[in-house]
Amino acid sequence: MTGFMAETKRESTDPPEPADGHDAGVILERARASVDPQLRSAIESLPVSMRRIALYHFGWEHADGTPAADNAGKAIRPALVLTAAAALGGPEARAEAVRAAAAVELVHNFTLLHDDVMDRDTTRRHRPTAWTVFGVPDAILAGDALQALALRLLAEDPHPASARAAARLANCVVELCAGQHADTAMEALGPRDVTLDEVLAMAEAKTGALLGCACALGALYAGAEDEDVEALDAFGREAGLAFQLIDDVIGIWGDPRSTGKPAGADLAARKKSLPVVAALASGTPEAVELASLYEAPYAKEDLERTALLVERAGGRDWAQVQAADRMARAMQDLARAVPDPEAAGGLLSLAEFVTRRSS
Amino acid sequence: MTGFMAETKRESTDPPEPADGHDAGVILERARASVDPQLRSAIESLPVSMRRIALYHFGWEHADGTPAADNAGKAIRPALVLTAAAALGGPEARAEAVRAAAAVELVHNFTLLHDDVMDRDTTRRHRPTAWTVFGVPDAILAGDALQALALRLLAEDPHPASARAAARLANCVVELCAGQHADTAMEALGPRDVTLDEVLAMAEAKTGALLGCACALGALYAGAEDEDVEALDAFGREAGLAFQLIDDVIGIWGDPRSTGKPAGADLAARKKSLPVVAALASGTPEAVELASLYEAPYAKEDLERTALLVERAGGRDWAQVQAADRMARAMQDLARAVPDPEAAGGLLSLAEFVTRRSS
Repeated sequence: MTGFMAETKRESTDPPEPADGHDAGVILERARASVDPQLRSAIESLPVSMRRIALYHFGWEHADGTPAADNAGKAIRPALVLTAAAALGGPEARAEAVRAAAAVELVHNFTLLHDDVMDRDTTRRHRPTAWTVFGVPDAILAGDALQALALRLLAEDPHPASARAAARLANCVVELCAGQHADTAMEALGPRDVTLDEVLAMAEAKTGALLGCACALGALYAGAEDEDVEALDAFGREAGLAFQLIDDVIGIWGDPRSTGKPAGADLAARKKSLPVVAALASGTPEAVELASLYEAPYAKEDLERTALLVERAGGRDWAQVQAADRMARAMQDLARAVPDPEAAGGLLSLAEFVTRRSS
Repeated sequence: MTGFMAETKRESTDPPEPADGHDAGVILERARASVDPQLRSAIESLPVSMRRIALYHFGWEHADGTPAADNAGKAIRPALVLTAAAALGGPEARAEAVRAAAAVELVHNFTLLHDDVMDRDTTRRHRPTAWTVFGVPDAILAGDALQALALRLLAEDPHPASARAAARLANCVVELCAGQHADTAMEALGPRDVTLDEVLAMAEAKTGALLGCACALGALYAGAEDEDVEALDAFGREAGLAFQLIDDVIGIWGDPRSTGKPAGADLAARKKSLPVVAALASGTPEAVELASLYEAPYAKEDLERTALLVERAGGRDWAQVQAADRMARAMQDLARAVPDPEAAGGLLSLAEFVTRRSS
């Protein structure tokens, strides 16, 4: 376990090292292996017009319909469902939660299809986005169909928790929509018109909500008590926020492990990411200069200065301390629901993986 | 009961006159009264950003958020759910099916929000469409949220049929998506490249599927046998296709009761509606001339000639005979599931209402 966050970690909340068998890479691979057959058979059940788009989006087919070897992302959300179920209910609960895991992954991908349309993003997982290949209407429709598939999987699941899981997942979709709305609305505002609370609330709705829901669904499928379901939801939300904070730091200063976005990408896009808004809200002279720079069109020669201003205004430190705080809270939520460190090890590894504290 | 279709009706399948108390207007009003509180409370549960758009779309608020007195359409789909439940399970089943009726109406409105974005339609129910007021991203998100609300209503419903109803409604959403895809794809084709079977399949998926699903959900909530659920689904589908055929006739020659679209609207838009495609597929000299006209940009002076060609090529007669056939089949499906004419009266009235054979 390494990473640039080591210096902001507090000894008192330092989580135990994951036990053997809790390697995040292995957990993710196992999740992908468990969930893919369910996911594929759900997508195969679509009418051909919708199936083509979904298979392309998941990276299983090229645009011309020939099979592709790409895989469909890291399966973090299905892994959270399955690992939460295993933590609270053992291997049987994990096996029973596979449909729920597939449903969460379908919801995630439905939102990606629609977000790419709204944000006009042209690349996703190193490939052209679905709307650039099939057009906007088809990308919207395929997203709609994936949401329906997700909720159908749960409606058809005889497990006693399936109805509560479906209601929870549907509520999460509403929250994701509100989060995406807030994100779009804030991008249209000037740098002086966005508050830190608003950006934090947006990040929780857009990123934290589905990670929390994934963990909660796993707990529901393990037959957990309500308070444990809520604790696991909180765990996922806090870990999700820690992830977003660190992702935003990487979006400005680059990934110390050099596997992420190029340094400065978010600044060039004038993104109101968490460190930037923290800097803008700092009341420092640097905040004033940063706001002026952000109001002007992007110029390459200003990039270094912009990053320096965010750092000097305290945005970088704030984000790293916040991320560590969120992770500490996540660990407390996890310990409440799963007191046995051995049982909690898998979820801990996943939280560390998404916050890039381990690989 | 009057209407221009009288001449194509067959005596042998002539349905009985609806009994007193089966007036379609009364049924629709009662459905609206039953379903509105459920619908409103579902929409009130949305985060404020999504709620605003939904309230506007339903006609309950103006764009500035002030209350509006408009109502949210005719409630045909909720009326089908409630009337089907009553036909097979009496007033108790009707009362229990209110959530399902609201869910169907939410799905219908989610598809309207998205279809308007895709089709770039600027007017709906005599008001600017949501995307023209709130922008494309917000209209997409509000549609997504309404789909989630619909499936949440069923997931939270303790009725023993709710899971099967949810699975059926989710499947219907997938069919609606495929139908809208087919519609969009066909509009991009030339007039010689569309077959009658394709247009019929599209109309069934886009219009028939949800009317059938509404009836099937009512049957499920009445605890009906599988075969009766399927028979009511078929009833709704056939009635929906009859509706579409007559709507297409009205889109060319106008509404004999002068309450519908202006004559010629669909021809001006070069719409490949059912009578037009039937005419194009007729193998007549008029079909050849019609195809040439349809390939050229619209000119007002050609409108009368175009309508005449569709009529001479047999498109009008075909559509009217088809509509009568579909209604006859719908009546047979209805009689299979609900042999008692008194119990079937409400569904019969609604089918006649949607096909404009009674007001």
